[in-house]
Parts: sequence; structure tokens; C-alpha cells
Amino acid sequence: MVVGLGPGDSDLMAPRAREAIETAQVIVGYKGYISLMDSALLEGKEIISTGMKGEMERCNRAIYKALGGRDTVVVSSGDPGIYGMAGLVLELLDKLGVAHELEVEIIPGISALAAAAALLGAPLMHDFAVISLSDLLTPWEVIIKRIEAALEADFVLVIYNPRSKKRAWQLGEALKRVKMIRGDDVPVGVVRNASRQGQEVKVVRAKDVDESSVDMLSIIFVGNSQTRVHANRMITPRGYLEKYSPPQEVEKG
Amino acid sequence: MVVGLGPGDSDLMAPRAREAIETAQVIVGYKGYISLMDSALLEGKEIISTGMKGEMERCNRAIYKALGGRDTVVVSSGDPGIYGMAGLVLELLDKLGVAHELEVEIIPGISALAAAAALLGAPLMHDFAVISLSDLLTPWEVIIKRIEAALEADFVLVIYNPRSKKRAWQLGEALKRVKMIRGDDVPVGVVRNASRQGQEVKVVRAKDVDESSVDMLSIIFVGNSQTRVHANRMITPRGYLEKYSPPQEVEKG
Repeated sequence: MVVGLGPGDSDLMAPRAREAIETAQVIVGYKGYISLMDSALLEGKEIISTGMKGEMERCNRAIYKALGGRDTVVVSSGDPGIYGMAGLVLELLDKLGVAHELEVEIIPGISALAAAAALLGAPLMHDFAVISLSDLLTPWEVIIKRIEAALEADFVLVIYNPRSKKRAWQLGEALKRVKMIRGDDVPVGVVRNASRQGQEVKVVRAKDVDESSVDMLSIIFVGNSQTRVHANRMITPRGYLEKYSPPQEVEKG
Repeated sequence: MVVGLGPGDSDLMAPRAREAIETAQVIVGYKGYISLMDSALLEGKEIISTGMKGEMERCNRAIYKALGGRDTVVVSSGDPGIYGMAGLVLELLDKLGVAHELEVEIIPGISALAAAAALLGAPLMHDFAVISLSDLLTPWEVIIKRIEAALEADFVLVIYNPRSKKRAWQLGEALKRVKMIRGDDVPVGVVRNASRQGQEVKVVRAKDVDESSVDMLSIIFVGNSQTRVHANRMITPRGYLEKYSPPQEVEKG
């Protein structure tokens, strides 16, 4: 099983995910996420955890554990299907020629983007594009082309992996396009550690983004041409209030 | 509070959402979703439910209940932040001039797109664009322009509200662009009633989509240029296996 842990707070993890972890014999995951998990949940289990860039090793070991008949769960933060571990597990199964030997179930989770959007207000009420700025596995030309296309077609933009120590200039290039195409004042939401310890939420204008405070634990939202800021919240209107007359007052309580 | 119910199965609803509903005095929601909820959860509460297109009335009544001092929860299927009720509640608060009188918390949920992706395999391992085909509140020219832009920039496409009885031709227009820009054979996933009763999951080629079986309970995924089908699953590679050498065999079990 590939299981989504949700953003971090245990009361945002689905009961189905919890049950899968409780009944598993082997838990496989990035050590940063394993350490966030309730330790009671891991008691008595074999834990396989590796660091950043250890994805392939983890998936490989998980597959061989499962082939040996052990109930194995690969955990992934947020939703395992959004830039998560689901794909690598399925790809590797296929590459190893064992896709038909193992039954893999994917249990979805509350994605980082949903958790962050809830903290910002309602930025995703209209069409949106989700883009990772990491050019480790994707050429930068493809990434920047996608950003420009999404901006020009007036999608709300959700940016994953916006900046790391070794990959610092890409965010500036992306924001340059944002300001050029959507203007200096378009609302931008920056959420760090959404719904987990160390949570930070900021709503600013594109021209005021503090790049140095952005890292790999951050996720960035760029509003579309209609997105507004009210009471420090980002709201992308869906169009109801523009189309239909405002509702009548009704009795309170 | 605006609370995400998740896709439908109660074991995919977050504990925080369940608790919010349990402790609320008033529950407000679309009658189709209220009827899917565990009836024990609703016992003894005031229920305000209306039909399709009753969103504005529901939000309005919820706000007045809350202004009257009642603990009020607006429920939204999937994640309330993705084409859900979060935006309308916040917009209406602002329009009514009471944004500072009420504290609104948004509790995220497992989105329909995450639930559907888990059933299809791993279509969202790379950048994706989410587009609603409903032209009730958005001009069709804007929608089709977004579809073309997303296809040309090689985003995976996620299509919400693909087809209704009164709105049948739009899907054909969208699929025409898909076939033109991405080819007849690009993998397309069609999921109906993801993780709730009546679930249907199909993986086909763009040229073989059966439009007549698609409705408002369906969500459609169009692969990017790299998306493949293996063992009837849609997999969009992230690029690990292309970049790094395949892993070594390890001991089973």
C-alpha cells in the first residue's frame, strides 16, 4: 500500500490511512516524515527510512519486502498521488516485471496544496495549475514554459518545491514572469509547514515576496486576475456574486 | 467552519472534520451530500440543505445562523477549497460586511482529484492543470483557451464538471483539442463516483472516450506526453528511472 499521511497534524490523516499503518508489518518512508508520525503507531514494526533522494532505494526495498509476503506500507506526506510516492512504486513494479505479482492499493491523503489553500482563504475556487520548480528531473525550459502558459491563460498558480539552498535562482525567474504577465500587485500566498509544526502563512503582493524566507517546506500560490485580498485572506471568486443578485437578509440564529 | 467531507467513504474523512460536525449545532449543505453522511453524525442537529444551484442561499443562511451565535458548519464534498464552498462563504461575508464579526475556519479534505487519481494509478506525478468545463459562470472562450494552453505546455489535465444533460457539447470540444494537440492515443482516465457508492474507473485512449457515460459525477484525467498505461493503470513518470540507474535487487521479505 502507498498511504497518504496528510499534511502532518494527525487529525488530518484519514482513518483508512491510519488503519493501513496500524495493521502493516513494515513501514517505509522518508525519515523526515517518519519522525513526524505518532510513535505509538510505529511500535513493533519494521521501519525502513532513508533521507532525501533516497526515494528509489525506499521503493525498491518496499517492493522486495512485499514480494517476501510482508504487509508493507510506503508512506508519503500529503497525498501520495501528487508529486508523491505512488508513481515511483508503480513504475518500479513495472520495471522489475512484478506488476502482476503484487496488488498495490493507493490511499489518498489531504494534499499540501489543499492544506495550504485552507490557511490562505479560498485561492483555488477557479481553474489552477500546479507546477514544481525543481529542475532536478525536469529541464528548466519546460518548467518556465509551463509557468508562462499558465500565467497567460489566467490560471491560479500553485508552486511546489519553490526554492532550496542549492536551487535559489529559479524562484526569482518565476516571479519575474508573474510580475511581467500578471502585474506587481497580484496577490501571492506563501505557506510554510502547512498544518504541521512551524506553520507560517503570509499573503503579500507579487512585488513584496521575500524570496529568502522561502524553502522546500514552502508552497506558493499566485492569484489569477480576479483574486482579491480581504481580511488578509486570498479569495478567487467563482463568479456567483457577479452573476446572481446578492441574497436577501434572513433572520439571525 | 467550512468542512471538507472527503470523497464520500467515511474512512476518508479526516478526524478534524468529523469532530467539527459532531460538535456543531447547525449543519448546512447540498442535499445530495447531506444524504451521503452518516445519519448518526447528524442526530439532534439543525440541518439546512438545499438542491443544486442553492449554494448562495445555503451560505447566506449559514452566515446568519453563525451571526446569531450558533455553531455552524458548512459541509462541502471533497476539499472545500477546490471549487468548493470556502470561497462563496468568504465572499459573502465580505459582501455582507461581516467578515470581521465571524471567525471562519476552513478544514481541508481529500479532494475528488486525489481520490480519483489514486484509483487510476499515478497520473499526477508531474505538473498538472485543473479546469472546470462548466460555462455557467465562466465564458467558454476562457475555458477552451485554458485547455489549449495546458495541452500545449504539456500539463496533465484534470477536468471537473465535464458534462451535464444541459451542457453536453463542451466535452466533445475539449476532447477535440486533446486529440489534435496530444494525439488520439494519449491515455485518458474517467472516474465516476470516486470512493463512494457506484464507483466506476476506466482507463482508455483519447479516441475511445465514451462521452455518453460521462456526467457531473465524473472527473477526467488526460495524460501528458509521457503518461503510459501499465496493468490498466495511468502512470505519469516523474523522471527518476530515466535519470538514475535502476536499483539493485535486494533480498525478499
